[in-house]
Amino acid sequence: MNNKQVLLASRPTGAVTESHFRIVESAIPKAGEGEFVVRTHYLSLDPYMRGRMDDAKSYAAKAEVGEVMVGTVVGVVIESRHEKYKVGDFVETRSGWQLYGVSNGSGVRKLVADYVPLSAYLGAVGMPGVTAWIGLNEHGRPKAGETVVVSAASGAVGSAVGQLAKLKGCHAVGIAGGKSKCDYVVNELGFDACIDYKAGGLDAALAAACPQGIDVYFDNVGGPILDAVLNQVNAFSRIVVCGQISGYNDPGVLTVHNFRSFLVNRIQARGFICSDHMDLWRPALKELGELVHNGKLKYRESIAIGLDSAPAAFIGLLNGKNFGKQLVKLI
Amino acid sequence: MNNKQVLLASRPTGAVTESHFRIVESAIPKAGEGEFVVRTHYLSLDPYMRGRMDDAKSYAAKAEVGEVMVGTVVGVVIESRHEKYKVGDFVETRSGWQLYGVSNGSGVRKLVADYVPLSAYLGAVGMPGVTAWIGLNEHGRPKAGETVVVSAASGAVGSAVGQLAKLKGCHAVGIAGGKSKCDYVVNELGFDACIDYKAGGLDAALAAACPQGIDVYFDNVGGPILDAVLNQVNAFSRIVVCGQISGYNDPGVLTVHNFRSFLVNRIQARGFICSDHMDLWRPALKELGELVHNGKLKYRESIAIGLDSAPAAFIGLLNGKNFGKQLVKLI
Repeated sequence: MNNKQVLLASRPTGAVTESHFRIVESAIPKAGEGEFVVRTHYLSLDPYMRGRMDDAKSYAAKAEVGEVMVGTVVGVVIESRHEKYKVGDFVETRSGWQLYGVSNGSGVRKLVADYVPLSAYLGAVGMPGVTAWIGLNEHGRPKAGETVVVSAASGAVGSAVGQLAKLKGCHAVGIAGGKSKCDYVVNELGFDACIDYKAGGLDAALAAACPQGIDVYFDNVGGPILDAVLNQVNAFSRIVVCGQISGYNDPGVLTVHNFRSFLVNRIQARGFICSDHMDLWRPALKELGELVHNGKLKYRESIAIGLDSAPAAFIGLLNGKNFGKQLVKLI
Repeated sequence: MNNKQVLLASRPTGAVTESHFRIVESAIPKAGEGEFVVRTHYLSLDPYMRGRMDDAKSYAAKAEVGEVMVGTVVGVVIESRHEKYKVGDFVETRSGWQLYGVSNGSGVRKLVADYVPLSAYLGAVGMPGVTAWIGLNEHGRPKAGETVVVSAASGAVGSAVGQLAKLKGCHAVGIAGGKSKCDYVVNELGFDACIDYKAGGLDAALAAACPQGIDVYFDNVGGPILDAVLNQVNAFSRIVVCGQISGYNDPGVLTVHNFRSFLVNRIQARGFICSDHMDLWRPALKELGELVHNGKLKYRESIAIGLDSAPAAFIGLLNGKNFGKQLVKLI
C-alpha cells in the first residue's frame, strides 16, 4: 500500500483546470515521537481553497506549488506515538488532499463517533456549520420576524444559515442555481422561499419573496446577486460577507454597482472568516451537533469517490455543480 | 422689504443646473401663536441636499417641486410668539433657502453668540462636525498609531475627521482635489499627508502616504477613490460610509471593483447619517465647541454672497469647487 497525494502543480490565472493539479504516489508516512498517522475517510472540498491556489494576499497562507493541496479531512488514527491520540480514534485534521497524513496534534479535533455521521464533522458540525453560525449570530444578528436572505442556499454554509434563521423565527429566503436545488431548499430544508438565479428576473423574484424587504443578507457569492440585494435591503440592514465565489475564477464578475445603498440604507457590512472567532467554535459546535443529532438541522452531501476525482470535484464546486457539501470519500 | 426664496423648480435627471431652481419673492412671514420668525444670516449648503432633489428613496424626505429648497440656517429671531425664544436670540433652524423663515421651535438649537463665530454652528460646531465626530468615534474607532484616511479632506466633514484623528494620536491622511487644497490640509490643518486625486497615480501616492496600510477610511466620495483604498486596507479595517458625492449626479461613477477586499480583509463597513445617533449630538457639540473655541479645531469657509448665488454655489459644491464649508451669507 502506498500513500497517494494531490499536489498543486501550478497556479491558475483564471479558471482552475485539472492541469493545475498533479497526482503522485509516495510511501505511507511514519509517526515520529509525539506524532500520529491518520488514514483519511473523507476529504472536504471548500470554496476557500481557490484563494489558497493564488499568489495574491488572502486571509490564509497560500498553498505552495509542488506541495500537497491544503484541506481538512476526517479519518482514523492508524499509528500513534502521541499520548493523547490512540489507534482507532476518529479525528478531524488538516492532512490535505492525500490518503494518509501525519500530525503532531496541532489543530486536531477528536470526534465522537456515532453521535452524528463522520462526514457531518466536515459540514454542518464542522467549519461550514460554524461559519454559518458565527456569520448569522455575530454579524447578521437577525431578530424574529426579520427577513434573512442567503445565497448558495443549498450549499454547506447556506443551508445551515437558512435553517438557523428559521429556528430563530425569521423569514428565510434562499438563492440557488436551478430548480432542483431550489425545491430542495424549500421542501427539505424548510426555507420560506428559494429563488433560482439562473431563471432570470432576479429583482422581481426577490421582491416577491421578501415582501417586507431584506434585513440580513448572508453573501456567499458576490457579484450581480449582491447588487440585486442592495436594491432591496431595509434601513439598518446587515450584510454578512462570507464568500464571493462567483468571482473566484474571474474577479471582474465581482463589480458592485449599487454601493450607494450602503449610505442610503445605513448598511452594516462585515467580511469575516470563521477562524477570526475561535472563541465561538465550542458553543457553535455544541449547538450544531445537537441540532444534527436530533434531526433539526438537515444537510446534503455531494460525494466524489476516490482521490483521483478530487480535482474535477473541486472544479465542479467552483462552478456550482455540487449539490450540498462537497466531499471526497477515500475509504 | 420682502422675503426671497429659492424653490425647487424641477427634479434633475443628471447634473444639477440653475434651471432646476426658481427664485421668487413673497411677503415676510408672520409668527402665529407659539411661533417665531427668523431672519437668516447664513444658509448652509451640504452634499446631502442633492439626494433631496431626487424622487428616489433616500435617507431623508425629499424636497417637493414648487416648494422652498430644504436646508439649515443660522439667524436671529426678529418676531416671537413662542415662550422660549425671544427677539434677538440666535438660533440654528431648518428654514431652507430663504431670507426669512417661521418656526414653532421644533428641531431648533439656541446658539451661544460670541463663543464661536456664528457660521461655525453650521460647520465644525454643527451638522458637519457632528458627522465627523460620530463617524470617526462610533464607526471608525481608530486607536492611537493607526492610519486614518479621509476623502474630501478640505471639506467641512473631512477637515474635522483628520484633525480629530490627529488629536487621537493617529496618522491622518487626506485626499482632496488640487494642490492648494492639499497644501492647506497639511500646512494649516496638520494632517500628516494629503493626496491630490486629480494629479494621477493615486495608488502609488496612497501607498507612500500610508506605509502601515489603512486602518480606517472615512469615505465622503465613493467611486474610484474607494476602490483605490480597498486595495490598501489592513485586515480588520473599518470603512465609514458617510458620503458618495462623486456619484450624486451620475450614479454610474460609484461602481466598486474591489469589493472582494471586504472578505479578504474582513472589513467592517457602516453607512450612517448623523441623525441616526441623536443621543451623541450633545457630547459631540460640547467637544467640538470647546475645540473651536480654543483654536484646536480649524476650519475654512467658502462664502457666497446673497441668496441669488445659492444655486451656483450648490452646483460648485457638487463639483468640488468649494474650499471648506460652503455657506451663503444673507445679511
